[in-house]
Amino acid sequence: MRYLSAKDIKQVLSMKEAITEDKKALQLYSNGKADIPLRTNLSVDGFGQSLYMPGTTSGDDPTLGLKIVAVYPDNPKSGLPSVPATMITQDAKTGIVNAILDGTYLTQLRTGAVQGAATDLLAKEDAKTALLIGTGGQALTQLEAMLTVRKLELVYIFDRDQKRAKDFCQKAEIEFKDRFSADFVDIDDPNKVVSKVDIITSVTTAKEATFDGDLVQPGTHINGIGAYTPEMCEIPVSALKKADKIIFDTLDGVLSEAGDIIQPLEKSLIKKSDIDGELGQLVNKDIKGRKSDSDITIFKTVGTAVLDIIVADKIVKKAILQNIGTILN
Amino acid sequence: MRYLSAKDIKQVLSMKEAITEDKKALQLYSNGKADIPLRTNLSVDGFGQSLYMPGTTSGDDPTLGLKIVAVYPDNPKSGLPSVPATMITQDAKTGIVNAILDGTYLTQLRTGAVQGAATDLLAKEDAKTALLIGTGGQALTQLEAMLTVRKLELVYIFDRDQKRAKDFCQKAEIEFKDRFSADFVDIDDPNKVVSKVDIITSVTTAKEATFDGDLVQPGTHINGIGAYTPEMCEIPVSALKKADKIIFDTLDGVLSEAGDIIQPLEKSLIKKSDIDGELGQLVNKDIKGRKSDSDITIFKTVGTAVLDIIVADKIVKKAILQNIGTILN
Repeated sequence: MRYLSAKDIKQVLSMKEAITEDKKALQLYSNGKADIPLRTNLSVDGFGQSLYMPGTTSGDDPTLGLKIVAVYPDNPKSGLPSVPATMITQDAKTGIVNAILDGTYLTQLRTGAVQGAATDLLAKEDAKTALLIGTGGQALTQLEAMLTVRKLELVYIFDRDQKRAKDFCQKAEIEFKDRFSADFVDIDDPNKVVSKVDIITSVTTAKEATFDGDLVQPGTHINGIGAYTPEMCEIPVSALKKADKIIFDTLDGVLSEAGDIIQPLEKSLIKKSDIDGELGQLVNKDIKGRKSDSDITIFKTVGTAVLDIIVADKIVKKAILQNIGTILN
Repeated sequence: MRYLSAKDIKQVLSMKEAITEDKKALQLYSNGKADIPLRTNLSVDGFGQSLYMPGTTSGDDPTLGLKIVAVYPDNPKSGLPSVPATMITQDAKTGIVNAILDGTYLTQLRTGAVQGAATDLLAKEDAKTALLIGTGGQALTQLEAMLTVRKLELVYIFDRDQKRAKDFCQKAEIEFKDRFSADFVDIDDPNKVVSKVDIITSVTTAKEATFDGDLVQPGTHINGIGAYTPEMCEIPVSALKKADKIIFDTLDGVLSEAGDIIQPLEKSLIKKSDIDGELGQLVNKDIKGRKSDSDITIFKTVGTAVLDIIVADKIVKKAILQNIGTILN
């Protein structure tokens, strides 16, 4: 058994590899090769709750694991994360727990990577500019994923707190200067650039659309990463209405959790038949993606444990080969 | 976060302390202070299955954790355990995973301790002799628990494989010689001593009663530890019929899993009203235990995650204070 810290994970698996794993994960999911039971939710009265998300995939190379995510809103008062997470992987062929991973970085990595997979499969090949809305804990890997799959020259960064956007640009500059040549520019209003960018990625917990859909131009690819409850919403209905392609990570997940899809469906502003399918089907080539450079494409994700399990399994297999991590006996 | 090996756990928590914790755990359970959801069971086709058992207890000192138990019958062919187990504990007040524990030894410890709790509360005060039936992986802590709660002078050891019983006696001699003065004697037939002992503990996966109930004398206390499926059975019906007190670890667990109780209930050989209640109620003094030295008392356990969570929580708290285990950052 070994322990893999965030640093260990970064050393072992690149964003590019994580994107490959997320594609594989969603392919397994869409092919019915993933068994992801309903998560178990325990409440600790007066403190918070803890979610247990086990899962397994079948096939030549089966995987098995569990992510534990706790939601403790008061943790930050004590300088602790409000959503601490831990991943546990098992050798699927023996059942033995073979690694414990930092679940917070794993979640950032696989959530960045799932957007990277979608952007890779749906955005224009020659996309040069992007807009990132939201600069919270998930934002850096979202930026990294876009930079990984397209040769971006300019990324606009927006946050309701402009100071946070400025700080984020500096952080991104330092983090990515050796690997990517894009410029990062903080802006005070996303709508000033919506019509100018090839890719829009929104990663917030907003309850209303984070940009004006009327300004979205033909050719744009939009990623909705943040809104993960029926009350939340990031993607404008007007964008959904003019989209040529709407793809989810999982139909079940998005249709039961994502407000920006559930709300317009309930109000009959969009129809179920407007939804084209799952990203795994796109990887499988069971459905088609962008047809021309003028298509508007939209990807919405709420996440699924199969992403955690497949990415973690790859990290652990590489860590074993490279002898990385703290060995526990 | 820290990792606690079997050796670390042994160093931190004695059987006596584990018995105290198991009593507390069953008390919380019987008082409705434990939330133990149905376990999640995942199958890995062609290899085995993995069970996820989370749980939490409320009160002044809440606890939170999860045990993972895998069942892989072919593992021993590769020299691996057929039922590997891992325990994960969380700080219930922050949700953060604070320890990973060897789940195999934890299970042996808490299963020994629950019998120790029952024997302490139900056996005659001056019990001097015992019979242990079965010398598998759970047997050593079963013996330790009996030795811990009563000043035993002689323990008979039976196994269908007499060589195994002999080896077990030697192992027990070495393990316990500094702490207990009892003699360990292997026997070729348990029924030769059933009428002579004060305590009988059966820990097997038998499908029929492991001793003759007609031979059981007044005053005997019987522990049924092994049979944990509806098909298994250790306790003879004749013993159940003449028992003055029948106590379970949990009513729900035993009535849905333990063949030695389910089968005679289904055949109307015993009635539900013959069952006196849960060990936690006995700890609470909500029900009475042994009334005289001539009572026959029976305890049946199939285990519950609350035992794992409470015992593990105590181990982790002591390990933090004593700075024991491998620290993971």
